[in-house]
Amino acid sequence: MTPEKTRIGWIGTGVMGNSMCGHLIKAGYQATIYNRTSEKTRTLQELGATVVSSPKEVAQQSEVVFTIVGFPRDVRSVILGEDGVLAGSHEGMVVVDMTTSEPSLAVEIAKAAGAIGVQSIDAPVSGGDTGAKNAALSIMIGGDASAVESIRPLFELMGKTIVRQGGPGAGQHTKMVNQTLIASGMIAVCEGLLYAHKVGLDIPTVLESVASGAAGSWSLSNLAPRMINGDFDPGFFVEHFLKDMKIALDEASRMNLALPGLALGYQLYNAVAGQGHHRDGTQALILALSQLNGIDWQSQYS
Amino acid sequence: MTPEKTRIGWIGTGVMGNSMCGHLIKAGYQATIYNRTSEKTRTLQELGATVVSSPKEVAQQSEVVFTIVGFPRDVRSVILGEDGVLAGSHEGMVVVDMTTSEPSLAVEIAKAAGAIGVQSIDAPVSGGDTGAKNAALSIMIGGDASAVESIRPLFELMGKTIVRQGGPGAGQHTKMVNQTLIASGMIAVCEGLLYAHKVGLDIPTVLESVASGAAGSWSLSNLAPRMINGDFDPGFFVEHFLKDMKIALDEASRMNLALPGLALGYQLYNAVAGQGHHRDGTQALILALSQLNGIDWQSQYS
Repeated sequence: MTPEKTRIGWIGTGVMGNSMCGHLIKAGYQATIYNRTSEKTRTLQELGATVVSSPKEVAQQSEVVFTIVGFPRDVRSVILGEDGVLAGSHEGMVVVDMTTSEPSLAVEIAKAAGAIGVQSIDAPVSGGDTGAKNAALSIMIGGDASAVESIRPLFELMGKTIVRQGGPGAGQHTKMVNQTLIASGMIAVCEGLLYAHKVGLDIPTVLESVASGAAGSWSLSNLAPRMINGDFDPGFFVEHFLKDMKIALDEASRMNLALPGLALGYQLYNAVAGQGHHRDGTQALILALSQLNGIDWQSQYS
Repeated sequence: MTPEKTRIGWIGTGVMGNSMCGHLIKAGYQATIYNRTSEKTRTLQELGATVVSSPKEVAQQSEVVFTIVGFPRDVRSVILGEDGVLAGSHEGMVVVDMTTSEPSLAVEIAKAAGAIGVQSIDAPVSGGDTGAKNAALSIMIGGDASAVESIRPLFELMGKTIVRQGGPGAGQHTKMVNQTLIASGMIAVCEGLLYAHKVGLDIPTVLESVASGAAGSWSLSNLAPRMINGDFDPGFFVEHFLKDMKIALDEASRMNLALPGLALGYQLYNAVAGQGHHRDGTQALILALSQLNGIDWQSQYS
């Protein structure tokens, strides 16, 4: 897989896709790109990408096509739809969905792709906008082992932790584990901060005592400071986290697996969205739990 | 505060107290010690400590007395009881309770001590048996600022993160924040592992993808490996964690603060104890959540 031999395609040029595709172009790959909102293709166009008007056309021009869009319905549309990737595909092509989406849809796509000689890989990521920008993502991969190996050089331009977890859907399932971990972890952080606030402790001083020991977590170190600075800008959107938790809970239901912490997290994040924070970052959970407790967080931490 | 001038006392020579007091003795301090179960004083006696038969006698021989016992009722008994520390105290003495105990009891002790010219400090720790052994504890301190400063050299022999959080009770409140963080954090870890197991992923491979990113935590890095190795030996006892969560929930109730994640954690850990694991480590939560879901964890991970 070299820039000389492989033309890549990219569908979905939001915050994440923009950085990720940018790394491939800067490494010398020719890119054909598509985005529903065409203004968002400008930065990549300036780097040299060719903009086309459908996912189908992207596929016609590419050996490897990446997608990273919003919701499972968008994945379905850009890959399986009438003007989708598979409609423009050719034998030997590889399609890689990096959206966090349904494991069952990943399996469905892999079957449809396989039937026409196309390899399909699910490869959702964690690490957010910063991880995408710094090519430091964790990429969780499901799909045929040799197909995954063949495009590993491309993954290495975007991520730092690149692990194949199994066959089709295994990448999505691993991402669901990741989101399940985050859900209750965020409850932990918010409740710890609320307790400290309510009892009159100085939260930064408390963090000195607790952040580096057994109570420590990425969320505590990285999001608690934002909460006490009143910074609710999205690293990761509440509405996307809700989508992810819903997928995980539906999968768990399908398996008759009770996950009470995840269920609680989903309910609380529905409240966050209900309070108007669906386009804020996930650290906005502190606002919902504060409001539940009659605490006006934003008037005190800003 | 030097070994030449300060005689120390130590009450409670379990796993934690044994290591912590040992550091003071090795630094040259003369120690007078007491433990309810007298066999547990042997190691320290061999290091040169003098064993006496009541907390009162410890106080009579010491300028600074440390206590680290089991439950709030034990703290009450060894400090405020008939044969307790205050009964044997003298003006200018300092008593430091390092048990994780009730903030309100810390305030009560500080008042009783203050009335007879004794300084009282609450200084619970995190870091477990390993932290105690390596003098790497986080010590969370409540009490008069100058009293805390006067014994800081002693804390520095036992811990790495030594932070005064405020007046009497503030150390205990900070420890409650710590335990609140751990409670939902442990639910997160167990549910993540259960999802991965149920869906057929290889858990160590999943950990490669998720442990160092936004889903990462101390519990995930340190306790998930024990769970999948079937190692339920106590770093931290389930029954002690239950005691701590009960204190935090009671404090939260007193303040009308709803902490649904902590409440869920408390309920689930009651199930862990109900299944006979009260003297296992907190990682035994995976067994309770497995059993809830009809999964025989121990037959598959050992």
